[in-house]
Amino acid sequence: MQRLSQLAEIGREGRAGAHRPGLSAAEQEACELVAAWLGQEGLEVSWDACGNLYGRLPGSDPAAGEIWAGSHLDTVPNGGRFDGALGVLAALEAVAQLRDVPRTATLCVAVFRDEEGWRFGEGCFGSRCRCGTVTDADLQATDADGVSIGEALAALGYREPLGRGTLPAAFVEVHIEQGPVLERLGLAHAVVTSIAGMSGFTATITGSPGHAGSTPMEGRRDALLAAAELALALRERAARIDGAVVTVGRLAIADAAANVIPGEVTISIDARCPTAEGLEALVDGLGEACSQVASASGCAVTLDPVWRSRPVPMSARVGEAIRQAAATAGLELADLASGGGHDAGILAEAGVESGMLFVRSRNGGVSHRPEELTDEADVATAIKLLAGTLATLGCAG
Amino acid sequence: MQRLSQLAEIGREGRAGAHRPGLSAAEQEACELVAAWLGQEGLEVSWDACGNLYGRLPGSDPAAGEIWAGSHLDTVPNGGRFDGALGVLAALEAVAQLRDVPRTATLCVAVFRDEEGWRFGEGCFGSRCRCGTVTDADLQATDADGVSIGEALAALGYREPLGRGTLPAAFVEVHIEQGPVLERLGLAHAVVTSIAGMSGFTATITGSPGHAGSTPMEGRRDALLAAAELALALRERAARIDGAVVTVGRLAIADAAANVIPGEVTISIDARCPTAEGLEALVDGLGEACSQVASASGCAVTLDPVWRSRPVPMSARVGEAIRQAAATAGLELADLASGGGHDAGILAEAGVESGMLFVRSRNGGVSHRPEELTDEADVATAIKLLAGTLATLGCAG
Repeated sequence: MQRLSQLAEIGREGRAGAHRPGLSAAEQEACELVAAWLGQEGLEVSWDACGNLYGRLPGSDPAAGEIWAGSHLDTVPNGGRFDGALGVLAALEAVAQLRDVPRTATLCVAVFRDEEGWRFGEGCFGSRCRCGTVTDADLQATDADGVSIGEALAALGYREPLGRGTLPAAFVEVHIEQGPVLERLGLAHAVVTSIAGMSGFTATITGSPGHAGSTPMEGRRDALLAAAELALALRERAARIDGAVVTVGRLAIADAAANVIPGEVTISIDARCPTAEGLEALVDGLGEACSQVASASGCAVTLDPVWRSRPVPMSARVGEAIRQAAATAGLELADLASGGGHDAGILAEAGVESGMLFVRSRNGGVSHRPEELTDEADVATAIKLLAGTLATLGCAG
Repeated sequence: MQRLSQLAEIGREGRAGAHRPGLSAAEQEACELVAAWLGQEGLEVSWDACGNLYGRLPGSDPAAGEIWAGSHLDTVPNGGRFDGALGVLAALEAVAQLRDVPRTATLCVAVFRDEEGWRFGEGCFGSRCRCGTVTDADLQATDADGVSIGEALAALGYREPLGRGTLPAAFVEVHIEQGPVLERLGLAHAVVTSIAGMSGFTATITGSPGHAGSTPMEGRRDALLAAAELALALRERAARIDGAVVTVGRLAIADAAANVIPGEVTISIDARCPTAEGLEALVDGLGEACSQVASASGCAVTLDPVWRSRPVPMSARVGEAIRQAAATAGLELADLASGGGHDAGILAEAGVESGMLFVRSRNGGVSHRPEELTDEADVATAIKLLAGTLATLGCAG
């Protein structure tokens, strides 16, 4: 917990929360602090071409695949102290606890760069680099100041890393839930069963602008009211599909004025579902909802896809190792799908047996904000469970 | 129509529409052009302390009250060529037509300054000045560049005009409808029965922000969905009250992001009704709708009044004079309430017998935009009806 507090101070500069943009000096400082801690724990410290950090505890059989545990150290603007950092420090503590335990596989703490992705527009940069899925075009992406990923890497002394690095046999990521489910269930931890697939859209609703006073209610084609109907219809659609969520997080009225009927409204739609069939049904439902609102309101509704990712199942083998550790400790675990993307999803897609352990978020699951909170006791148990999981995987590996 | 086109060019500077902010050099140029036309028609031109322009045709009985007709020459940004200007030019043509007709009362073309009010935040500046309801505090209001009304007046060579000027016995304003009702009815003109009362509010809806992926649909307190329910409930409330309209023209999500559940949303509410009882019922209904949405959504909803004006009935005597002119011309008139505010409403509140003649807007009633359109034939008939109305009032006065 002291180390979490120490990390939270880096780059904070008077803000209430943690502030370490991906590939920034603040993220680099956090990585270097953790590298020092890794060294103090007797681990072999190394960095890869794009700045991912590793701390290895060698196993007895160099031919056995490595078992990695970790997460990321970058944060959203004015974020929390647990998101990412908890997974890195839990891995550090768990691997340190296993120093004197016999094991065949090499254990490794992994810190992936720029997971949040808000600075350059796409998340999980470090794990994507390691898995060789970053393209030359990706490196051209720039931040709000016009700095490209390539330039940010160079400023930190890293090369532009294309091509896949050596990957482990398995990867385990401890992460806060960032949601309210564990708190509601009264449980402290969950095995993550899959990472939800996501589809992002922009919907544009076009009606008729008009004078707010001299246009009767009857016959109005109010784009905001049509957008309201659409947002509520999307909620209904999501409620019909197990585990599905839909969020309208942005809404903009063109030429907005208090005394003008909105003529054009643009909204963002973020749709997620843990299963591929569910996501497909959800996306089909969005299209149907747009058509229904269009015909009922007399407005034109267009739906433009912005991005899409498939659901990624987590490894059954890693999940079983986590459950075994919980059984040994006499702890009950929930099964949860992750609504957010994580580095574990990137490694899973690259063929690494990957799993996640979620730790209960307090305050209703608030995250990406200074109020983000996880109990110290839940952190301690998560470390114990991770150590047990790594021991199982490292001996079996 | 040529004069309308000539006015539309002033201050346009490459825009598609007319652009003459209140108390600007462009509005002044338009007034001076009209002053020249008034002089060419043989009218006695004068200006008052705040820049309102008058062109008088004296009557035979100096003791009879004056009969004014007119409107304004300022426009919204990139507006239409008919809003305001039509009423001024119709008055100019109608009074000119009556030059050789015997009359007791003095007829006067009146041009009021800064009716639109967007530059300094409150409309009908010129008519409010004339009626003596502008305060010292009102003159401190500033535009987006920090220029106060007082400074704008001084820059045009006018004094700060406090106190009521001499008012006429009656005022008639020809104006485009700025709505679709006459076009739907298939009629070209309407007698305005009253100017709607208006209540403006800001509603703030506070829920819980959250991660769009990891917060299940159940238990969300999404401020945008609550705002959507409120906007739709307001439409239902307005539909229950004769002549009532409600518009949500602005909506802002605090800290909006596509992957964050909106935690706080602010909306504008513009509510109007031609009758005092209807407006009261409508405003009560808004409060009830806020309470219902709050209890159904789990969000807090606060409703802050921003401004309010009472409905203003138009003069029965002026209305009768307009109807008599229509009967003489064999024209059918509609009865309409005005949803927008007008200088005629200010003069009516000051005790002047005031009336309005609405002229059909084409293109579904679009106004405040370059597409604003009224047929030439409808304009010609409006001038004829106004001349008849002034003749009736000027002889009876």
